[in-house]
Amino acid sequence: MEAFSDGIFAIASTLLVLDLVVPAASTPDVGQRLLEQWPIYLAYLVSFATIGQAWLAHSVITEYLDRADSILLRLNLVLLFFVSVLPYPTHMLAEYFSNENAERIAVTVYGLNLLAINGFTSILWHYAVAKHLVSQDNSEADVRAFTSKLDPSLATYVLVIGIGLVAPKVAVALYLAIALFVIIPFRAVIRLIRRRSGP
Amino acid sequence: MEAFSDGIFAIASTLLVLDLVVPAASTPDVGQRLLEQWPIYLAYLVSFATIGQAWLAHSVITEYLDRADSILLRLNLVLLFFVSVLPYPTHMLAEYFSNENAERIAVTVYGLNLLAINGFTSILWHYAVAKHLVSQDNSEADVRAFTSKLDPSLATYVLVIGIGLVAPKVAVALYLAIALFVIIPFRAVIRLIRRRSGP
Amino acid sequence: MEAFSDGIFAIASTLLVLDLVVPAASTPDVGQRLLEQWPIYLAYLVSFATIGQAWLAHSVITEYLDRADSILLRLNLVLLFFVSVLPYPTHMLAEYFSNENAERIAVTVYGLNLLAINGFTSILWHYAVAKHLVSQDNSEADVRAFTSKLDPSLATYVLVIGIGLVAPKVAVALYLAIALFVIIPFRAVIRLIRRRSGP
Amino acid sequence: MEAFSDGIFAIASTLLVLDLVVPAASTPDVGQRLLEQWPIYLAYLVSFATIGQAWLAHSVITEYLDRADSILLRLNLVLLFFVSVLPYPTHMLAEYFSNENAERIAVTVYGLNLLAINGFTSILWHYAVAKHLVSQDNSEADVRAFTSKLDPSLATYVLVIGIGLVAPKVAVALYLAIALFVIIPFRAVIRLIRRRSGP
Repeated sequence: MEAFSDGIFAIASTLLVLDLVVPAASTPDVGQRLLEQWPIYLAYLVSFATIGQAWLAHSVITEYLDRADSILLRLNLVLLFFVSVLPYPTHMLAEYFSNENAERIAVTVYGLNLLAINGFTSILWHYAVAKHLVSQDNSEADVRAFTSKLDPSLATYVLVIGIGLVAPKVAVALYLAIALFVIIPFRAVIRLIRRRSGP
Repeated sequence: MEAFSDGIFAIASTLLVLDLVVPAASTPDVGQRLLEQWPIYLAYLVSFATIGQAWLAHSVITEYLDRADSILLRLNLVLLFFVSVLPYPTHMLAEYFSNENAERIAVTVYGLNLLAINGFTSILWHYAVAKHLVSQDNSEADVRAFTSKLDPSLATYVLVIGIGLVAPKVAVALYLAIALFVIIPFRAVIRLIRRRSGP
Repeated sequence: MEAFSDGIFAIASTLLVLDLVVPAASTPDVGQRLLEQWPIYLAYLVSFATIGQAWLAHSVITEYLDRADSILLRLNLVLLFFVSVLPYPTHMLAEYFSNENAERIAVTVYGLNLLAINGFTSILWHYAVAKHLVSQDNSEADVRAFTSKLDPSLATYVLVIGIGLVAPKVAVALYLAIALFVIIPFRAVIRLIRRRSGP
Repeated sequence: MEAFSDGIFAIASTLLVLDLVVPAASTPDVGQRLLEQWPIYLAYLVSFATIGQAWLAHSVITEYLDRADSILLRLNLVLLFFVSVLPYPTHMLAEYFSNENAERIAVTVYGLNLLAINGFTSILWHYAVAKHLVSQDNSEADVRAFTSKLDPSLATYVLVIGIGLVAPKVAVALYLAIALFVIIPFRAVIRLIRRRSGP
């Protein structure tokens, strides 16, 4: 299961690069044109960070797993479906950045896709715990700690999808913030700063 | 064998996303245009589900395998050939949805591709069993149970290819139904419903 | 080394599908147009078979290997370079099929690419044997048998490149024949036929 | 971590091939036109060699690792981000080769990307050593030797980025030289030559 899943995570995140279009060499001010493409870069960054964050959660789950049953494999396939389709709303997000009405659609579809990725990650985990597929080597405290990390993110995504209907650009900024918050180890950074400024 | 095979399954299913085209931002009614693309989404879904189902069968086979001989590796390559080529008839299916004559061709080619994927999965399995490449740890009952799952699907595909010659759209709906039937664990869902409504 | 190598083999063979172009739905006779694309299908088939054959040889080598040194890893990278570039001459082959002069160039570049893939596979193997990186569990007879399979193919490729300068289409047919000869287990088929027709 | 990372390295290096465009068959002098594309081939070669070199360093690190903590996984994701994005400046490099002003931008962005790949490889390694994530089986001498290989390359990249601002084409040649220097085992070649010409 892991090689196939990791393959899909890796390919979906790498295929995103095909959306970055290089302006033709004949364009008068190439530097300016490249900078104007910042919405595309931002969409790329948000999607890469989101797939990265989903992969982190997924690899924790597969590490905790003792064995897989046939339903778990199928739930995993549905999760991978939503991972593999993410380049499409990412492309929409980049394409519709300067068109207010189209942007609302793009941001909503994008948010639903992120919600589906995180939702099925959560379902996968709850199923594994409920069916005792998680290795007994893991303490109950560890299992609970991981559960309490996964679930609140769902409520956040629902909230941001709502915000996106009113203010699409704010929602994109929030999606980036969520993904960066998970990827960048803020607590470790804060600890480091404290230690340096400490006695 | 597994890393290479899983790689091809993962890439073929993820490359499908490149077929989903985003309408230009200048299009008057973007939302409407996106909804009109439903045949493309459907074709994407059917192909993802079919590759997912083929991967499930393939991963059961590789798990049962004790060792591989050189003929098995070659049969596996032929199977992977038909997996890797599936994005092409998927693209045809999406492109020819509104053109009756072309659609018949697309649905037939698509069906033959699905038949080839399932047929070579079956051949791979029968070869492994016949040559005693299957691990002795598996009970004969398990082996027979898996065989009895693989083979009837071939007859179904032949039947649906025939239906597709007369009613192409019905055939597409049936291909989706077959793939969903394999991926969604219906029996588990029914069991769950029964238990909840039970005493 | 194996996950990275298998990944490149898998991606190079799957990316080939992007070259298969679906004629527009508005084309008068879609079926006819699809059949006219047979040179593209042929080029796809030859390249998939060649990568498959190269992967077979590569997976035998990695199985025989006991350990890798830094030079072996680098030789492997050069081999992977030529594998990953193969979709380019494949595309040339398909594009230039009906243009005699361009076709000669395409077939020659294609042949040189196949020669490089097979040549570096051979170099990789000879290096591993010379540096005693091959596991001692393998009998010397096995090692010699594999060597005697790898090397003659190089002479064949040089010969077919020469033929391609005079008769490009004959060379393509020969490349297909070579790849199929390696992939299809003819000896097993002949043995099967003999046994069935035997006493 | 390894399957996902190796997947991204493999896909990023193989996707580069999509940038190699085949001139239309109707072009008068196809051979000439193919030769004129040498900047694209060069950019492809430099990027493949650079990703190959980064993968070599990365696989040494994962081999030395005893375990991973959550910060290491995140640092690894940032590294993979810069690997997966490399096809974009590669494309820029090829596109802007004949336009002096645009080329300066392309070479600088490309250099910064290479610096980021090598910088995060170095950070990953230093973090692993500092946090004692490196297996105790490795001698301190080995660890120091690898460190002393990684770090000087950063200074080199900073220098070449500076050169690129003045003479972009020289910088590209230097990037190629660096990557080839790491990939081709020169010391082994020199040793071989010495031995042959020796007594």
